[in-house]
Amino acid sequence: MSYHKPEAKTVQDLKDLAQKLRIHSINATQASKSGHPTSCASLAEIMSVLFFQQLRLNLKHPRDPSSDRFILSKGHAAPILYAAWAEAGLFPIEDLNNLRKIDSDLEGHPTPRLNFIDVGTGSLGQGVAVGAGMAYVGKNYDKADYRTYVVVGDGESAEGSVWESLHFAGHYKLDNLCVIFDVNRLGQSEATSLQHKLDVYRDRLEAFGFNAVVVDGHDVEELTKAFHCAAITKSKPTAIIAKTFKGKDFPNIEDLDNWHGKPLGDKAAEVVKHLQGLIVNKDVKLSPKPVSKTGAAPEVDISNVKLSSPPSYKLGDSIATRLAYGTALAKIGKNNQRVIALDGDTKNSTFSDKLKALDPERYIECFIAEQNLVGVAVGAACRRRTVAFVSTFATFFTRAFDQIRMGAISQTNVNFVGSHCGCSIGEDGPSQMGLEDVAMFRTIPGSTIFYPSDAVSTERAVELAANTKGVCFIRTSRPNTCVIYDNEEPFTIGRGKVVRQKSSDEVLLIGAGITLYECLEAADQLEKNCITVRVIDPFTVKPLDAELIIEHGKQCGGRVVVVEDHYQQGGLGEAVLSALAGERNFVVKHLFVPTVPRSGPPSVLIDMFGISARHVVNAVNEILKD
Amino acid sequence: MSYHKPEAKTVQDLKDLAQKLRIHSINATQASKSGHPTSCASLAEIMSVLFFQQLRLNLKHPRDPSSDRFILSKGHAAPILYAAWAEAGLFPIEDLNNLRKIDSDLEGHPTPRLNFIDVGTGSLGQGVAVGAGMAYVGKNYDKADYRTYVVVGDGESAEGSVWESLHFAGHYKLDNLCVIFDVNRLGQSEATSLQHKLDVYRDRLEAFGFNAVVVDGHDVEELTKAFHCAAITKSKPTAIIAKTFKGKDFPNIEDLDNWHGKPLGDKAAEVVKHLQGLIVNKDVKLSPKPVSKTGAAPEVDISNVKLSSPPSYKLGDSIATRLAYGTALAKIGKNNQRVIALDGDTKNSTFSDKLKALDPERYIECFIAEQNLVGVAVGAACRRRTVAFVSTFATFFTRAFDQIRMGAISQTNVNFVGSHCGCSIGEDGPSQMGLEDVAMFRTIPGSTIFYPSDAVSTERAVELAANTKGVCFIRTSRPNTCVIYDNEEPFTIGRGKVVRQKSSDEVLLIGAGITLYECLEAADQLEKNCITVRVIDPFTVKPLDAELIIEHGKQCGGRVVVVEDHYQQGGLGEAVLSALAGERNFVVKHLFVPTVPRSGPPSVLIDMFGISARHVVNAVNEILKD
Repeated sequence: MSYHKPEAKTVQDLKDLAQKLRIHSINATQASKSGHPTSCASLAEIMSVLFFQQLRLNLKHPRDPSSDRFILSKGHAAPILYAAWAEAGLFPIEDLNNLRKIDSDLEGHPTPRLNFIDVGTGSLGQGVAVGAGMAYVGKNYDKADYRTYVVVGDGESAEGSVWESLHFAGHYKLDNLCVIFDVNRLGQSEATSLQHKLDVYRDRLEAFGFNAVVVDGHDVEELTKAFHCAAITKSKPTAIIAKTFKGKDFPNIEDLDNWHGKPLGDKAAEVVKHLQGLIVNKDVKLSPKPVSKTGAAPEVDISNVKLSSPPSYKLGDSIATRLAYGTALAKIGKNNQRVIALDGDTKNSTFSDKLKALDPERYIECFIAEQNLVGVAVGAACRRRTVAFVSTFATFFTRAFDQIRMGAISQTNVNFVGSHCGCSIGEDGPSQMGLEDVAMFRTIPGSTIFYPSDAVSTERAVELAANTKGVCFIRTSRPNTCVIYDNEEPFTIGRGKVVRQKSSDEVLLIGAGITLYECLEAADQLEKNCITVRVIDPFTVKPLDAELIIEHGKQCGGRVVVVEDHYQQGGLGEAVLSALAGERNFVVKHLFVPTVPRSGPPSVLIDMFGISARHVVNAVNEILKD
Repeated sequence: MSYHKPEAKTVQDLKDLAQKLRIHSINATQASKSGHPTSCASLAEIMSVLFFQQLRLNLKHPRDPSSDRFILSKGHAAPILYAAWAEAGLFPIEDLNNLRKIDSDLEGHPTPRLNFIDVGTGSLGQGVAVGAGMAYVGKNYDKADYRTYVVVGDGESAEGSVWESLHFAGHYKLDNLCVIFDVNRLGQSEATSLQHKLDVYRDRLEAFGFNAVVVDGHDVEELTKAFHCAAITKSKPTAIIAKTFKGKDFPNIEDLDNWHGKPLGDKAAEVVKHLQGLIVNKDVKLSPKPVSKTGAAPEVDISNVKLSSPPSYKLGDSIATRLAYGTALAKIGKNNQRVIALDGDTKNSTFSDKLKALDPERYIECFIAEQNLVGVAVGAACRRRTVAFVSTFATFFTRAFDQIRMGAISQTNVNFVGSHCGCSIGEDGPSQMGLEDVAMFRTIPGSTIFYPSDAVSTERAVELAANTKGVCFIRTSRPNTCVIYDNEEPFTIGRGKVVRQKSSDEVLLIGAGITLYECLEAADQLEKNCITVRVIDPFTVKPLDAELIIEHGKQCGGRVVVVEDHYQQGGLGEAVLSALAGERNFVVKHLFVPTVPRSGPPSVLIDMFGISARHVVNAVNEILKD
């Protein structure tokens, strides 16, 4: 694959097209009266060369698994991305004037509501992780020819997440990945810290394992050559460091401060006129390269993933749910070759190493870099290429809250598994305890939250998560818990289980994980004093089985006690309160971890922080006075 | 300051002391039956040289503002940190055997419950940001001689947050900062990705603006020389890249897999015996350097911070609360020279630029790197050196949830200000909308959450936050809202305001920010149909004025409607439900943003997503049927 200098006509056409993209970006943001035309302008030649010379696209099916991937990590430059697709012929140019309008999917930042977008961008610094996930799948699972391109802004390259992902891409030698840095010098409120120090970018990228190429980002020929260099470079990803100017070719605006995120207003007409004057062939029309027939991605079926064998425990066995997770992961991995696991160097604690033991190829070690871990999983799950399970300690997902939040906007189906929840982890202390994870995952639109209490229900949670759309979160516990369900017990999302009941029950207890067992223990103790209570295991915290709770709560005189190994806010307790909001005549006592815990034995901690059986008994006795 | 080679006796003493620290680490983790002795062993010479040759410490007052700072970013090596302080004479050696016990503050990972710890560590990759914040204050505000040392593990150096902070330290030329990388090759579950590739670490660190020195981390003389080099290097921070071995000098354990986070068990006695054999002088006793009298940090008073002038608005003025934030920030900045602001390149949106306009020195631009932004603020606020206000878009604080969570464990007093909350920001779309920020900050133990609705209350929120312990969060809005309070109106944390009431009121409405105005608008519309409703502005969401809500809710027949520009989970609505959990005879309707919003005009969005006055009217009409 030797380099052929593009013909003069091609070069001029690409230049002309770049100016057309600039003009579209101005017009669209004029129509919407908001947006970022100057951030588009710095990218115009890069987009022109990418879309009309490099990317192999399928306009009939923009998410063709064999087509090249493109991620605009600097999502605020959305107008030029939309303009490129419109010029490519995907939709009419006139539609660009619907930018940011309520009835148009051409939103302020790209989302997969558009059929040519894989993931939402706009929170900066997340595109490289997603691209790395796609490239990892392309190279190692699909073993296909498609390449992945990510455009990163220089401002956003200050995000550490970018460097996590660059390291990942370098470490795994993702030579099918090309990251383009649009170094336009200016941030939102002032110049970037590195301005146009291209040598610093180059040194950093080389040190992070990249083939780094510095170019004039407004020179079509230099860009062409750099992309060729990227394509022929093996065993290393390539970074193209493009020196550009914000507002390029906008007279009296180019390279000036105070033009971020502003339409050109009354200067627009003059600038457009100037740009039109730079175009040689006003009728220029180019088409993207088609997807080649060779090197296609294989067909993949990730539907109806099942445990290869049903749960196999004895009632009364003592098994940590985190271990049952690993067992179930390996079982669905046996059933479907596209089940993969990703972890951040905690695989021997979360038990994701069980999939590695089954098939090392399908385990992706992401080391201690949780933002990249989540981003890679989102990328790997795109276009339904894999069923991705991501695990670490529950609390360390807080490190990637923004990535998870964007995952919802991206309509991702990634499954998250957080181990070591609550103060019941013991001696390692509060920094390692997940006490806000349920609150975090509950806020994610469309999420499903499993909080299984025993091994049987955990295995079913894993199976259900694998087949459920949207973000799933499975909360697993460190201590062993007793198997309380038969291996044949069916589980359904949004359906809880009544695990103890008598017609005389006066209070409804709700617990999950270790607190379910504290509830059962409390029930035993209370019964000795002739007080009987009902106990519900919710199985999923979201959706919560409101109907079951209301029905049984009413039967218990409207008295409910919820106990959880989590802080007060946003967890199981408030989920129950939300479920009961519309009901009069309920009273709820909520036991939770009230403050930052400390190091100590698990049983001492759950008692010290108010969620042990003793406290449940007290709560029942008190609520009976109401 | 020329380099003097240490005397042979000093070298031997430091070596002996390193072995004693190893032995203490083994014994303590034997006593606790958990912990990370091998992660301590790689650090022994580094700790010995730091504590008994480099650090200038005040044993009578470990948080002396003039003493050197030390942060063990790899917090799981806590036992050797405790051992160093014990050997220095701060507390008896025997106390080390209380490691991880319920009644000891020698926890599994360090927390400021100990008087010699500034911040909690244990969630990896956060120490450099904190250290950079301390160093920034030392160099630019205290202008004092103290130096800041941070020990980072090689595993954790995969965290992008580390690279954000290294860039920050390089950019601001923090030559009073020294970061030691303990490159012991092994992570928790396998080798690190870079293993012992010290040249890669060096290249990366140099590219990030550091003076990078590679040493044998077990060679006391090399370490001594490197610390000297750090001390004399100007205009650059120094990184000491120490090649070490996990479990160093533990026979048959050193440099081997599967020894992470495990006490030595039945091998302990043999290893201790071996280590004792390596000690030349069993009675070795060294003291840390004292704090020098010259170059001391100035006395600082950050108590009783006040607005330099009271709010000055007219009732009915239309002012965005984000703008009022900037105004108030500048006012308290005028009143107290230690008020500082930090932002991530959004200062012209959050209006933190108002402090920069007052005094450029007191504004710290952290560029687009929110994890470092938060960490630097936590560091800057340590030892009560500054009153730090950190701002960005509310939703981008999700990027730093782990840092904020650890901030609570660190007992930080940092004030967070999140602008652009909710779908009312409009056209920029969902990636920029804070819809989970209240849920996130509510989970932080001891946090205070202000959600002011007008300019007057915003100014008071800023003043109150500046004087409040623990994490404070102020949620500000993008659109203009009407001034509804007199300039003299007093505001108190945990006290809401009844902003509309009649004795005939049948429903209690609760809203904050833009939804308070939707409630007021709904009240007007309802009154035309002869339905009167009461309206409460909670002012703080946490603590919430439960008493006021219960009292007025009861007066309104137990009918409550809560409306918020936030997702359902963990926000104002669930806070109200928690406040009412113990009350029978309440029914609550909760209006919230039910799904991922989209781009569009603010007024259209708040109507489309169910939180406009029209929806409030409908909710009132429905709840009146209950």
